[in-house]
Amino acid sequence: MARLVMKFGGTSVADIDRIRNVARHVKREVDAGNDVAVVVSAMAGRTNELVAFCRSTSILHDAREYDTVVSAGEQITAGLLAIALQNMGINARSWLGWQIPIHTDAAHGVARITDIRADMLLERFGQGQVAVIAGFQGLAPDNRVATLGRGGSDTSAVAIAAAISAERCDIYTDVDGVYTTDPRIVPTARRLDKVAFEEMLELASLGSKVLQVRSVELAMVHGVRTFVRSSFDDPDAPQTGARNTPIGTLICDEDEIVEKQLVTGIAYTKDEAKITLRRVEDKPGVAAAIFGPLAEAGINVDMISQSKSGRATDMTFTVPTSDYDRSMALIESIRGTVPMESVSGSSEVAKISVVGIGMRSHAGVAAQAFKALASRGINIQLITTSEIKISVLIDAAYTELAMRTLHSIYELDKT
Amino acid sequence: MARLVMKFGGTSVADIDRIRNVARHVKREVDAGNDVAVVVSAMAGRTNELVAFCRSTSILHDAREYDTVVSAGEQITAGLLAIALQNMGINARSWLGWQIPIHTDAAHGVARITDIRADMLLERFGQGQVAVIAGFQGLAPDNRVATLGRGGSDTSAVAIAAAISAERCDIYTDVDGVYTTDPRIVPTARRLDKVAFEEMLELASLGSKVLQVRSVELAMVHGVRTFVRSSFDDPDAPQTGARNTPIGTLICDEDEIVEKQLVTGIAYTKDEAKITLRRVEDKPGVAAAIFGPLAEAGINVDMISQSKSGRATDMTFTVPTSDYDRSMALIESIRGTVPMESVSGSSEVAKISVVGIGMRSHAGVAAQAFKALASRGINIQLITTSEIKISVLIDAAYTELAMRTLHSIYELDKT
Repeated sequence: MARLVMKFGGTSVADIDRIRNVARHVKREVDAGNDVAVVVSAMAGRTNELVAFCRSTSILHDAREYDTVVSAGEQITAGLLAIALQNMGINARSWLGWQIPIHTDAAHGVARITDIRADMLLERFGQGQVAVIAGFQGLAPDNRVATLGRGGSDTSAVAIAAAISAERCDIYTDVDGVYTTDPRIVPTARRLDKVAFEEMLELASLGSKVLQVRSVELAMVHGVRTFVRSSFDDPDAPQTGARNTPIGTLICDEDEIVEKQLVTGIAYTKDEAKITLRRVEDKPGVAAAIFGPLAEAGINVDMISQSKSGRATDMTFTVPTSDYDRSMALIESIRGTVPMESVSGSSEVAKISVVGIGMRSHAGVAAQAFKALASRGINIQLITTSEIKISVLIDAAYTELAMRTLHSIYELDKT
Repeated sequence: MARLVMKFGGTSVADIDRIRNVARHVKREVDAGNDVAVVVSAMAGRTNELVAFCRSTSILHDAREYDTVVSAGEQITAGLLAIALQNMGINARSWLGWQIPIHTDAAHGVARITDIRADMLLERFGQGQVAVIAGFQGLAPDNRVATLGRGGSDTSAVAIAAAISAERCDIYTDVDGVYTTDPRIVPTARRLDKVAFEEMLELASLGSKVLQVRSVELAMVHGVRTFVRSSFDDPDAPQTGARNTPIGTLICDEDEIVEKQLVTGIAYTKDEAKITLRRVEDKPGVAAAIFGPLAEAGINVDMISQSKSGRATDMTFTVPTSDYDRSMALIESIRGTVPMESVSGSSEVAKISVVGIGMRSHAGVAAQAFKALASRGINIQLITTSEIKISVLIDAAYTELAMRTLHSIYELDKT
């Protein structure tokens, strides 16, 4: 008998039929003898509707009231799933954030969980009761509802799993796991059986939409084994994965991964734009003069490259595409204090990243990527690297070609 | 400076524009220097949608989970109205039942308020803050959300008014007050300026849809002056009723009504059906043998009349139309133990009631009604009376004629 957290997102609870389907998934785990806590999101579309209500009432709305309105979505799903489970003869009850309670900090709208009281949940497990928990919400120090920010139900699930020392946190979603890359772009992409926390963190922040970055961070800190799987599988089918485990991807400590791959996956994002400043006068404090105003404006600069020629320097960096116009305007406004020859930019770029914990102990992974891209005539505009990641910025037109090329040279299409 | 409760129902908060309109009503009262608590219902249609979700998940649903789901509607409105008020520069915050708290008994789905902690609301009034309270909900002894049953927001408003010793509880609705009778049937019906609690109780339970019976009971017990008015009036218009008071109907203690009318109003309902048992064998215990099974089946018998002829008796009574078929079947099933000649019935009947506290001290009101109805050829099938009410059951085809006749003989069309 194990403790298990099961988390279901908006598309998995989109209507009453889907909620019944979720109840069957839960029943399977209960019948297998597990103590189960289920974490649910709002029914697909509900949160957007409630957010739109707040926005059309006032553009500048009180985050505490926003939380009161928006948290109603998960509340509804939790009650309905409890009813569906009871209807199958399962002892179940719903829990709202303030009832457990799930304590958060005071940052309404983007709150962080500070503490979860698990004693009542554990007591009810002892009575054979399933806990159905409204995700995305907690209780702030002001005794009001706080929400965790979009996608926060993943974070709720991992935090609950840590609090009750669950053996595993199953994240049910509309895909059956984490892939070596986007299968819509690279048809030979493979589902990974296991991914290390650090790798998932890079993959999540690089645009893989499977899990929220914060939930992966939390899982890594608390060592919560997180299993990504599909809610669209037949809930009553036998679990038929390798070694009789269900189909999905386990995100776990790297020690649990016996055969470490050199490269685990190829991620991409088109959500960054490039800005190039030519022949900036090179003197101390110039970088601060450029990046200071961007930081003050809340613009997140990602990749930066600088190359000196004589007494001037060329500087290229990336910003989120949504901040591109604002960034260009800001740069124009500082040209009086920071002399430069020209400013140019493009949002027609893509960032491609090669991720793998195996890189730590193997040299030459980056060189292999650069050589392969060059052989395809793909020009690299920017490069950044970390211990387990290489990212390159290229012309967006080459995205698919670059991804297929890299996916192939690291032999990700082979099992 | 007075304390005021303002309650807005579902049609008054049906969309964001209507919520903004409510905010303007609130602003008017705040600007006049009042301490204001606003009680809101769910946006029109929301509660029905949530109830339908529960029903389609399972016909037999846990009332505690039903309450969790359905109470989300008022939660959403409370947050949105707080945002709308803040947007007008008014200091406001939303309160959910569990936050105040509004304590209820354990009867989930049809809970009764047992106690309201008013200290936090009063403290915030001292800081100039408007309280926006989710109606229809409270906190049950099990630390879970409880709802008060349909229309419970009226009850919430009156209970809050009692708890904070409000000078008045304003119920904003889609009509501008309580009328002498239904204006759709009797065009000369007049809005009443004042109605005594006892009269309103009779009018409410007799089919006037303006206020929930329970809220009127509560207002009477606690002496809460309750003012029914329209939310469709221009919120910014000067208050132009008699003696510079707003237009509406005040429900108050009869001592506050200086010029007492003999008759205050004529109510009607078509929601009752008649059942007649002919030549029932008359012996001790026969009434119990007939009405016992109906009571056990939860069928509410209203009017009863019995007339003896020889050793047999005729018995006529009314039941809610929705229970008519079930009642007829029950009566058939007891004919073995209670011999009777025949059973007949009809749902084509209407109950017309004449209500007025003035009747207490004036004889002849009933005789006047019987005479007027007879002169119109309207046959009275059943009669019941109380201290301040006379009800007659007639053929439904004569409903309009009977109401116009009674409205006229008691001079209700004259001011």
